[in-house]
Amino acid sequence: MSDVKKVVLAYSGGLDTSVIVKWLQETYDCEVVTFTADIGQGEEVEPARTKAQALGVKEIHIEDLREEFVRDYVYPMFRANTLYEGEYLLGTSIARPLIARRLIEIANQTGADAISHGATGKGNDQVRFELGAYALKPGVKVIAPWREWNLTSREKLMAYCQQHDIPVDFSSGKKKSPYSMDANLLHISYEGGILEDPWAEAEEDMWRWSVSPETAPDQPTYVELTYAKGDIVAIDDTPMRPHEVLETLNKLGGDNGIGRLDIVENRYVGMKSRGCYETPGGTIMLRAHRAIESLTLDREEAHLKDELMPKYAEVIYNGYWWSPERRMLQAAIDETQKNVSGVVRMKLYKGGATVAGRKSDQSLFDESIATFEDDAGAYDQKDAEGFIKLNALRLRIAAGKGRQQD
Amino acid sequence: MSDVKKVVLAYSGGLDTSVIVKWLQETYDCEVVTFTADIGQGEEVEPARTKAQALGVKEIHIEDLREEFVRDYVYPMFRANTLYEGEYLLGTSIARPLIARRLIEIANQTGADAISHGATGKGNDQVRFELGAYALKPGVKVIAPWREWNLTSREKLMAYCQQHDIPVDFSSGKKKSPYSMDANLLHISYEGGILEDPWAEAEEDMWRWSVSPETAPDQPTYVELTYAKGDIVAIDDTPMRPHEVLETLNKLGGDNGIGRLDIVENRYVGMKSRGCYETPGGTIMLRAHRAIESLTLDREEAHLKDELMPKYAEVIYNGYWWSPERRMLQAAIDETQKNVSGVVRMKLYKGGATVAGRKSDQSLFDESIATFEDDAGAYDQKDAEGFIKLNALRLRIAAGKGRQQD
Amino acid sequence: MSDVKKVVLAYSGGLDTSVIVKWLQETYDCEVVTFTADIGQGEEVEPARTKAQALGVKEIHIEDLREEFVRDYVYPMFRANTLYEGEYLLGTSIARPLIARRLIEIANQTGADAISHGATGKGNDQVRFELGAYALKPGVKVIAPWREWNLTSREKLMAYCQQHDIPVDFSSGKKKSPYSMDANLLHISYEGGILEDPWAEAEEDMWRWSVSPETAPDQPTYVELTYAKGDIVAIDDTPMRPHEVLETLNKLGGDNGIGRLDIVENRYVGMKSRGCYETPGGTIMLRAHRAIESLTLDREEAHLKDELMPKYAEVIYNGYWWSPERRMLQAAIDETQKNVSGVVRMKLYKGGATVAGRKSDQSLFDESIATFEDDAGAYDQKDAEGFIKLNALRLRIAAGKGRQQD
Amino acid sequence: MSDVKKVVLAYSGGLDTSVIVKWLQETYDCEVVTFTADIGQGEEVEPARTKAQALGVKEIHIEDLREEFVRDYVYPMFRANTLYEGEYLLGTSIARPLIARRLIEIANQTGADAISHGATGKGNDQVRFELGAYALKPGVKVIAPWREWNLTSREKLMAYCQQHDIPVDFSSGKKKSPYSMDANLLHISYEGGILEDPWAEAEEDMWRWSVSPETAPDQPTYVELTYAKGDIVAIDDTPMRPHEVLETLNKLGGDNGIGRLDIVENRYVGMKSRGCYETPGGTIMLRAHRAIESLTLDREEAHLKDELMPKYAEVIYNGYWWSPERRMLQAAIDETQKNVSGVVRMKLYKGGATVAGRKSDQSLFDESIATFEDDAGAYDQKDAEGFIKLNALRLRIAAGKGRQQD
Repeated sequence: MSDVKKVVLAYSGGLDTSVIVKWLQETYDCEVVTFTADIGQGEEVEPARTKAQALGVKEIHIEDLREEFVRDYVYPMFRANTLYEGEYLLGTSIARPLIARRLIEIANQTGADAISHGATGKGNDQVRFELGAYALKPGVKVIAPWREWNLTSREKLMAYCQQHDIPVDFSSGKKKSPYSMDANLLHISYEGGILEDPWAEAEEDMWRWSVSPETAPDQPTYVELTYAKGDIVAIDDTPMRPHEVLETLNKLGGDNGIGRLDIVENRYVGMKSRGCYETPGGTIMLRAHRAIESLTLDREEAHLKDELMPKYAEVIYNGYWWSPERRMLQAAIDETQKNVSGVVRMKLYKGGATVAGRKSDQSLFDESIATFEDDAGAYDQKDAEGFIKLNALRLRIAAGKGRQQD
Repeated sequence: MSDVKKVVLAYSGGLDTSVIVKWLQETYDCEVVTFTADIGQGEEVEPARTKAQALGVKEIHIEDLREEFVRDYVYPMFRANTLYEGEYLLGTSIARPLIARRLIEIANQTGADAISHGATGKGNDQVRFELGAYALKPGVKVIAPWREWNLTSREKLMAYCQQHDIPVDFSSGKKKSPYSMDANLLHISYEGGILEDPWAEAEEDMWRWSVSPETAPDQPTYVELTYAKGDIVAIDDTPMRPHEVLETLNKLGGDNGIGRLDIVENRYVGMKSRGCYETPGGTIMLRAHRAIESLTLDREEAHLKDELMPKYAEVIYNGYWWSPERRMLQAAIDETQKNVSGVVRMKLYKGGATVAGRKSDQSLFDESIATFEDDAGAYDQKDAEGFIKLNALRLRIAAGKGRQQD
Repeated sequence: MSDVKKVVLAYSGGLDTSVIVKWLQETYDCEVVTFTADIGQGEEVEPARTKAQALGVKEIHIEDLREEFVRDYVYPMFRANTLYEGEYLLGTSIARPLIARRLIEIANQTGADAISHGATGKGNDQVRFELGAYALKPGVKVIAPWREWNLTSREKLMAYCQQHDIPVDFSSGKKKSPYSMDANLLHISYEGGILEDPWAEAEEDMWRWSVSPETAPDQPTYVELTYAKGDIVAIDDTPMRPHEVLETLNKLGGDNGIGRLDIVENRYVGMKSRGCYETPGGTIMLRAHRAIESLTLDREEAHLKDELMPKYAEVIYNGYWWSPERRMLQAAIDETQKNVSGVVRMKLYKGGATVAGRKSDQSLFDESIATFEDDAGAYDQKDAEGFIKLNALRLRIAAGKGRQQD
Repeated sequence: MSDVKKVVLAYSGGLDTSVIVKWLQETYDCEVVTFTADIGQGEEVEPARTKAQALGVKEIHIEDLREEFVRDYVYPMFRANTLYEGEYLLGTSIARPLIARRLIEIANQTGADAISHGATGKGNDQVRFELGAYALKPGVKVIAPWREWNLTSREKLMAYCQQHDIPVDFSSGKKKSPYSMDANLLHISYEGGILEDPWAEAEEDMWRWSVSPETAPDQPTYVELTYAKGDIVAIDDTPMRPHEVLETLNKLGGDNGIGRLDIVENRYVGMKSRGCYETPGGTIMLRAHRAIESLTLDREEAHLKDELMPKYAEVIYNGYWWSPERRMLQAAIDETQKNVSGVVRMKLYKGGATVAGRKSDQSLFDESIATFEDDAGAYDQKDAEGFIKLNALRLRIAAGKGRQQD
């Protein structure tokens, strides 16, 4: 373990990663560089500085990555209408490649030969951090303390803090949540505690970002989202940068009880786990994006996108953002978004985000053809007969030869 | 046109198909057999008998197909979590193959050489009826009056009625809806009228099966659905037959404002169209089915199902139920449902149908492994390192050779 | 039929399209513009000029499109290792989009309002020409004489020639082939005649571009193909333009009995048909391209390409080159070809084109890892245990719960 | 290591697995049960008995699994026209699940708590053996000596033999091959040695099962294969059991220089490797199966099979035969094979296996429709116009709205 000289740690400023700082210094006898990012988790990042300093860290990186996060990761993902296992908006998954990239960039910049993170050995996040790290710097050493150390219970962790003068009190202000949580601009997640029983309903006081549908306003809220090339660029006619869009929609969604999700999902490491998620803005974005696509995408590209989406979601969930297959899928997806521009009007009401209208200069909806009224010859109904006859031909031949018919 | 001797008509008892009876008799100088089915459209079918008799029809078939419809068509489709274009539950599409099959069976039984229907030349339904008919009886003659006649406006239709003594008054009881509607146990659909403008929000009084979320009860309703092999077999512990399940869920969903959908979709005949749908029971079923699968399906079969689903939905939407490709997909889907058994608890509230709990004797969720607590060695966290290392190998080699990394 | 003023005809100079010139002039009372292209079919195109002049055509377009054909159509298609139904190299299909595009461009240039072609109403080519034409000029009128006229037998056609002074003798030089043939730089195809019996073996004298394997040289020929970004740019170190590459490989392949194919295929119009094809150069290119990809592509992008290929082949076979879905697929495919560079050494012998070696500066093959010899720690075999354990976890859990195991 | 009491070893009788017997006895102080199977590798299995006895093994299982291997593994795989990465017939991969199953069954029968195999830590076979074992007996202990011991060179292995009185001479009869080989009824594989350079051509004397195309007979051989439900049941009208079919085709293919393959493939463990394979019978079977399917499969099921095939191949290559996803895919594939019956006539000549004819009572090829001659109204060419018009509609609308057209 003596061959690590300097390690960049994804440092939250919380108890666990503070212990990791000390443990790395002690176990690897190496210098620790901390990296703390604001990706919209809703907590101040600046306090991490003094905490790191107190732990003897000399190189401290604190960054505001909110815009980059939404622009380069969340937005591209939403162009694909991405859902993992039909339901999950990938709020945790999509933040990891950015963290991995910055860890590696800082390692390159500071001459570190290793990176470290606070993810456990049972979850997906270790995979996402490490696949990203290896893809970007193949010779990097990755240290995953939770897979190595023996601080396997809260008691042992506390004992370690006491032994090493790590101030535990910095987390004493809040009552310790019974849940394991993770947050960024796209979502907040909850695992563990009573959620380990899939039959148990989540308690109301677990949820942090949204009011319950029951306590949401009795009047619906309407909001108009302007799209350009697949991405939202304005809300109610006010141009916004990507992270401002998501912040605004999180507020609107949360206020209206939108975006709660309670699922059992399949982890990449092979087990099922129960998770609850709040994704207020993302939930609105998904439905709105489908609505603007419904006007502007060709049928066959839309269907092909739908066929590719589960694979794309799996790629991101499993941690392969920095991979050739993700780039390949992204190229296909982005190719379709050139005309995905226009406005979607959403109705938000007590947990529901529904489409109230959509319009676009790029619309392929042709009222003169689609109408139930007289279409002045825009569409010749007689064409339908030949269309059906030839599409039926293979079925008729088969039936004529006595093949199974039902 | 003289070579048709007897034609079986899908007859609703309404004005349009009544005109078709007369038009067929006159144009083809043939005998007309009517077929009217109760598939849960919510209107009495028995009155169609006297109307048909008044039009001189001698062979009148009236049937209650509700159970068969749900058991053999709706249920198999829901095993795949089927959504067309990410949103549409295929309420109209799934009823057509059953109608097509009965038309052909009655044709065989009555010695008819043709079938006829009242679908227009712009829509999907003509395709679905006719592909089904050709697949089941390859030599059948199909007569689609809307593609042939010149009764292209309501005025001409009315004039035809007057000329031929067709009693128009039988529809005078209800105010003529501005929408084109279709209903069965799975859904009711609305097209046309102001919906032809995709920016226009549907008017509240259009919706017929559900209260608005705003007027739904202020207290949530909980319901428990029992699954066996992928299908619901009991509600709140009361065993039910398939159509009873759907009727019950339609009532529960409709009362809670659940199942409204407003989309622009891509028709098989090549145009986009705006449609509104109410699918109260189906909306609940979709989420509940995913929930019971989340406990009982293996990850890889679940993901493969998700990849195949868009194709399966397209096959049904386009009218290819009676095709080898549908049977092939169904074989794959049904193979996965053998262990999809258990109970899902749903919360219904003001438009939202959310999962409150799920349990199963066939559950693959393993608390002893998934736990955040000590797992007593059920899972060795050290295995994760090798797992990640080998999954990263191809990425590391590529990066080591200088390949693009972002 | 009086509303067509000028029509651009895909004119081969042969008897059938000469009849069409006259028939169009007469039936539509319109001016006919002819378009004749050299796409490597192996016949002189210049003679078409005097023939067209003799028919009274004033605007005559004759073009050499060989380079464009290979560069912009054949090469992009081969990047995907495209095979229709596992066997067919799409030699006919891939030429149609180019012809369609030039027809439309000439129509725009000459102010024509219609295009016409000599394809029959049973085949795929009518679809490919017309889908292309409609996609590029949505209001164009398409005239397909074979679907309209009553010259349905060779006798009637001859009678028409006699009546209209069309010189039949210009085809008298060659014995009329019993096969329907089509040729371009990529292949020559044969249909009809005794091939209509799928049990009958094609006669040796049918084949025109290749010697039989039996009569091919007794010594193998080796050839080295240099790839850059997925395309062949040199043969045996001699840089060549795309059509020169294909011409060279056609010669090499044909001399060695390579590229004969005899299949029953499924046409887009719904029937099966028997076809024989000679694709000497293309057959070599397919295997060589897979070989250079085997060194330079990442595993997951290679597998994703293989999953998308059948769809891509279907899109081209069915005539949707000029479609959003083809562009979307092409974007994904082209994204993967950036590093597909290097050299493949092929052995050609009596019908077989096999890979004898491949090398690349972009190779991802890592001898230090792959070796059976000592790898000096490049790969830690112990990682495999964790890799297997976690990949097995879902299967173990299922088996532990008593799930079916075989 | 003391907790293993009895281990079942996949024992070839060769040097390596003989060393493993001793090493297991010594290292784990446990009883070793040997399992040796004839799966057509072309070597006697009975000699393994005395060798095992000499090593002190008491429970010795020697079995002839040839028929089961072909019937239950090879045949189902060929129904899918399975090729890994477009070229590899999966000869090694498909034998592993059978070995894994028998290892576990013998473990259950003999009360063993572990299994062991002689595969290295760099290859796919360890994964295939172990995934199978874990899927069938989740609590089994797997011992992979090559990942554990330090006998990492041939010298150390020999030294171990000397120390432990293992008779090395039993392999002295044959000259030690420079290649790592594996054989069963489907194929023989070669890796290592000069093959580690992908530019180097395999030497002629490496190949063992086939003559070179150059030395194959100068006259072609014709053979007729009779299919029933997707499987070959007779050759030249002689009914045969599955393994007899494959043995016969291996002989015919090998005599005609058929089935050699030289590729670089992507291993599941993340590296590329060079392999050469001889699959004489399988190569014939693949082409013949496609030929009988070309007559008897519906177009859309055929295309769907092609889209699913790469995934199915990957599942088998990666070792997931005993998985829900393989069963799901198999259900879809087998559903399509009910009518895949008939006869294929193959021509074998100097490395080439080509289709000379195919016929079937279940043929969907309809000469009366496909003919270039007058079809007596079986197909109405005018239907094609409507077919094309509606298929073009979405493209025309898009072009009419000014969308990109090329």
